Amino acid sequence: MKTDIEIAQEAVVQPISEVAEKAGLKAHEIEPYGYDKAKINLDKSVNRKSDLGKLILVTSINPTPAGEGKSTVTVGLADALSLAGQKTMIALREPSLGPVMGLKGGATGGGYSQVIPMADINLHFTGDFHALTSAHNTLAAALDNSIYQGNPLKIDPRRVLWKRVLDINDRALRHTTIGLGGPTSGVPREDGFDITVASELMAVLTLSTDLQDLKKRIKKIVVAYNYDKEPVTVADLGVAGALTVLLKDAIKPNLVQTLAHTPAIIHGGPFANIAQGTNSVLATKTALKLADYVVTEAGFGADLGGEKFMDIKVPKLGKAPDAVVVVATVRALKHHGGAALADLNQEDLTALKAGLENLGQNIKAMQRYGRPVLVAVNRFTADTDAEIKMIEDFVATLGAQVFLADVWAQGGAGAKYLAQAVVETIDQADADFTPLYQEDAPALEKLQAIVENIYGGAAVELSAKAEKQLKDFAQYGWDKLPIVMAKTQYSLSDDPKKLGAPKDFTVHIREFVPKLGAGFLVALTGSILTMPGLPKHPAALDIDIDENGQITGLF
Amino acid sequence: MKTDIEIAQEAVVQPISEVAEKAGLKAHEIEPYGYDKAKINLDKSVNRKSDLGKLILVTSINPTPAGEGKSTVTVGLADALSLAGQKTMIALREPSLGPVMGLKGGATGGGYSQVIPMADINLHFTGDFHALTSAHNTLAAALDNSIYQGNPLKIDPRRVLWKRVLDINDRALRHTTIGLGGPTSGVPREDGFDITVASELMAVLTLSTDLQDLKKRIKKIVVAYNYDKEPVTVADLGVAGALTVLLKDAIKPNLVQTLAHTPAIIHGGPFANIAQGTNSVLATKTALKLADYVVTEAGFGADLGGEKFMDIKVPKLGKAPDAVVVVATVRALKHHGGAALADLNQEDLTALKAGLENLGQNIKAMQRYGRPVLVAVNRFTADTDAEIKMIEDFVATLGAQVFLADVWAQGGAGAKYLAQAVVETIDQADADFTPLYQEDAPALEKLQAIVENIYGGAAVELSAKAEKQLKDFAQYGWDKLPIVMAKTQYSLSDDPKKLGAPKDFTVHIREFVPKLGAGFLVALTGSILTMPGLPKHPAALDIDIDENGQITGLF
Repeated sequence: MKTDIEIAQEAVVQPISEVAEKAGLKAHEIEPYGYDKAKINLDKSVNRKSDLGKLILVTSINPTPAGEGKSTVTVGLADALSLAGQKTMIALREPSLGPVMGLKGGATGGGYSQVIPMADINLHFTGDFHALTSAHNTLAAALDNSIYQGNPLKIDPRRVLWKRVLDINDRALRHTTIGLGGPTSGVPREDGFDITVASELMAVLTLSTDLQDLKKRIKKIVVAYNYDKEPVTVADLGVAGALTVLLKDAIKPNLVQTLAHTPAIIHGGPFANIAQGTNSVLATKTALKLADYVVTEAGFGADLGGEKFMDIKVPKLGKAPDAVVVVATVRALKHHGGAALADLNQEDLTALKAGLENLGQNIKAMQRYGRPVLVAVNRFTADTDAEIKMIEDFVATLGAQVFLADVWAQGGAGAKYLAQAVVETIDQADADFTPLYQEDAPALEKLQAIVENIYGGAAVELSAKAEKQLKDFAQYGWDKLPIVMAKTQYSLSDDPKKLGAPKDFTVHIREFVPKLGAGFLVALTGSILTMPGLPKHPAALDIDIDENGQITGLF
Repeated sequence: MKTDIEIAQEAVVQPISEVAEKAGLKAHEIEPYGYDKAKINLDKSVNRKSDLGKLILVTSINPTPAGEGKSTVTVGLADALSLAGQKTMIALREPSLGPVMGLKGGATGGGYSQVIPMADINLHFTGDFHALTSAHNTLAAALDNSIYQGNPLKIDPRRVLWKRVLDINDRALRHTTIGLGGPTSGVPREDGFDITVASELMAVLTLSTDLQDLKKRIKKIVVAYNYDKEPVTVADLGVAGALTVLLKDAIKPNLVQTLAHTPAIIHGGPFANIAQGTNSVLATKTALKLADYVVTEAGFGADLGGEKFMDIKVPKLGKAPDAVVVVATVRALKHHGGAALADLNQEDLTALKAGLENLGQNIKAMQRYGRPVLVAVNRFTADTDAEIKMIEDFVATLGAQVFLADVWAQGGAGAKYLAQAVVETIDQADADFTPLYQEDAPALEKLQAIVENIYGGAAVELSAKAEKQLKDFAQYGWDKLPIVMAKTQYSLSDDPKKLGAPKDFTVHIREFVPKLGAGFLVALTGSILTMPGLPKHPAALDIDIDENGQITGLF
């Protein structure tokens, strides 16, 4: 069986100028990066059409080590819509380089449902993440320099919120001390590094509607507290203009293509736990202005990425999904129902039945917003007819329908019926989009809405610290901001071991992190790792390139 | 008076495809990055012509705060050669982003002798430095991960040579401790960050002749010593392939243009103190294969960058400069002769006479290699006829000639006579290139040759540590490697306060740093800063971008 990179390397790549033309972009509206990638000039293309295309959100059950193939289904569905003659585009997140060197597994789809050039997209792509790393660390250096040069802002070195970032899996940088080496090398303090995608600048960039909005948001970022415990912002440090200059190209959406030459916009990659977990507002909006159908996805499961798409991204985008596709696999559902990873190739209706509760809760969570929900089962050869039948029956009780997708092996042809159903469903849909909470509702009310309606849980509990924070935040008006729940992706609850659909659980909020540039409060539950480590055998050990420039080992 | 960026922004940019065509590159031999930048595909263009063009090396007196304008003269001279109908190209280093945010002052020439797009080149350009940062830190993460995962290579955490890098001026990162936070976050140890241009990978990338040579060199990099004090290399860590993949595009030279549309290759940017300080071997070679005249430069003064060009780069390039231009200004020479910075606009023949000794030693250093040397005086309005005459008379005693260059204000037209003289000089030159030392000479012999013949000093003194190192290195064969002297750029001696041409001085070697990938030994004299800090008022405070995307404050 061919690997993903072998399939990608054998692909006939259409010149990006032709892909752009197909998408309705004129030559001067793109900036080529090589012959297979381009950036889209913002001012010109975003205001092309007066009516927006239809938006299809692909999300999933809670992820398991068995794999669900959400990106693969996203690409396959878009190719199926293209095959059916619909003017279609994809809007996806950019992969992070750190994990590429750590764990095998692509972020560009798989098999015959991939976006290309796969290696470039997974490596440096058009440099967006590197620009973010630069801007983030320029801000960190400006902050420490301000402390060093007489500390005019009276920054408390013990209360610095702005860490440094690298797009590397590097556990040794999680907790550091800096400024050592005597009086000429700064002021010693505790610090640490996050991975670049965890930077608030990533959330900011991907929520911004233009360059000036970006600058305005950057100014508001709170980087530290001073000795009077008052917030210190980027505006106070005076470097918002410089950071915006560093991000002037990163804000432009990137154009690539699928193996079937469907135009794909790949742009931005915020985490789905500590940020909104979806591609940029500008990317999705650009696609909606150009195409009649836009297929996009949200990170992790419907409870995390799906909820944030609806509650954080939709208000900024000014457009809700016209249909939601929840992806599941028979394997993953059986794992949710208690089957061991080693046994997933055997029929197990008992485990499947139990695991279906997870799919059920994620379907209900998405139906809650008033949009039609469809279920795509990403086919594996070991799936039995009895298993598929059980899923279909279960999903029918929720008023939804199941479609089998064999997009890994067949590309768009493997999602023909799913694509037909999506188009028909959108044509027939009539319910209004129903937001989960009022924008200005108190934080606790928002948290309860998420836990009860999305997770199927019972209650929310704030730590003493979190309670005190909400009181402190009230004086700055931060207590009314939208909530971004930083929760394990593996469970609907805040306990990664509780698979399936746990009931009557309480979600514990340990701490809030104010993200004033992004415009939300992150609610931390449990310990969320913002700097991954490398495994015992990192993927980097298997990656190589030969004298002809042929790359091996990259997935 | 217009600023550099204003002049650059007003420029009429020729599409990079036309610039490439003028340079003799076919459309499929370049990869566009936007419409004004491109990468050159290595395999095709490097072997175009059988005979190489003529190479002109631009170097200077020891730099002073008064400014010499070496890059400006390099660009102006190339434009002058183009104006005279010669097929000309430029080969320059890429600027580092860290200093751009720190101190005002471009690295892309100035006035009407600039390379464009100036803002892009000074910011992220085509991402080469970001790729180096990624590759460097991926290696660092792999090293710490190896220590963490049972330390199979028995790496001594107290003897790690491979620090981390960022392309940021950030003094707080010079000395750090990492791996804090308990058993799940690595093994605590002392560490630190250098600026990206100080990475050995930068030296390696810019000395490599192709992708496989790059991989071979990367394997040899010594990253640490084990508990038996034996060297641990990248080959031992097993990530050379992955690092090469991360640098697969960074190794390709970048094509841009001057304001007068002369094709310019800008590629690589190693420090001129701890590395060879000049653009990549591939960039210069590509230019020599395409053009009849190639103007290039070396970092800092002739003593540092010039010497390294001749002794480190020439053997890898397989080609010595056909002529050397030493740049000076009346102002800088007066400062070398003792005039205060505030008084440089006043005629001062006494100070000038004393300062000319610095020019004299730098001319002699370059003449030592058997190549014709010309002097370019970069004109300032305050320069008097008597001052110019004194320089001309002095230079004549060394068998060289002075040419006035007014390239800042006039562009190529301001270097008309310099260009004519360069062409004539090259036509008449007949002496052979004379290397400074034999490749396999002992380290001390090489050091003495540099100090006596290039710096005009008397002797070399090794610290006890340095002496012991040479003995230790002998067992690995490292003691015969070429020497890269890490010395202050401000003085011919190792004391930055000794301006002019000090005599009878001894250069003290504190320590050697083996750079096995680059293939040289760095000899540290005094304290060489490899991570700059930000000043009290960083340039970042003045950089901004308006709603039309117009950048201000970038120089």
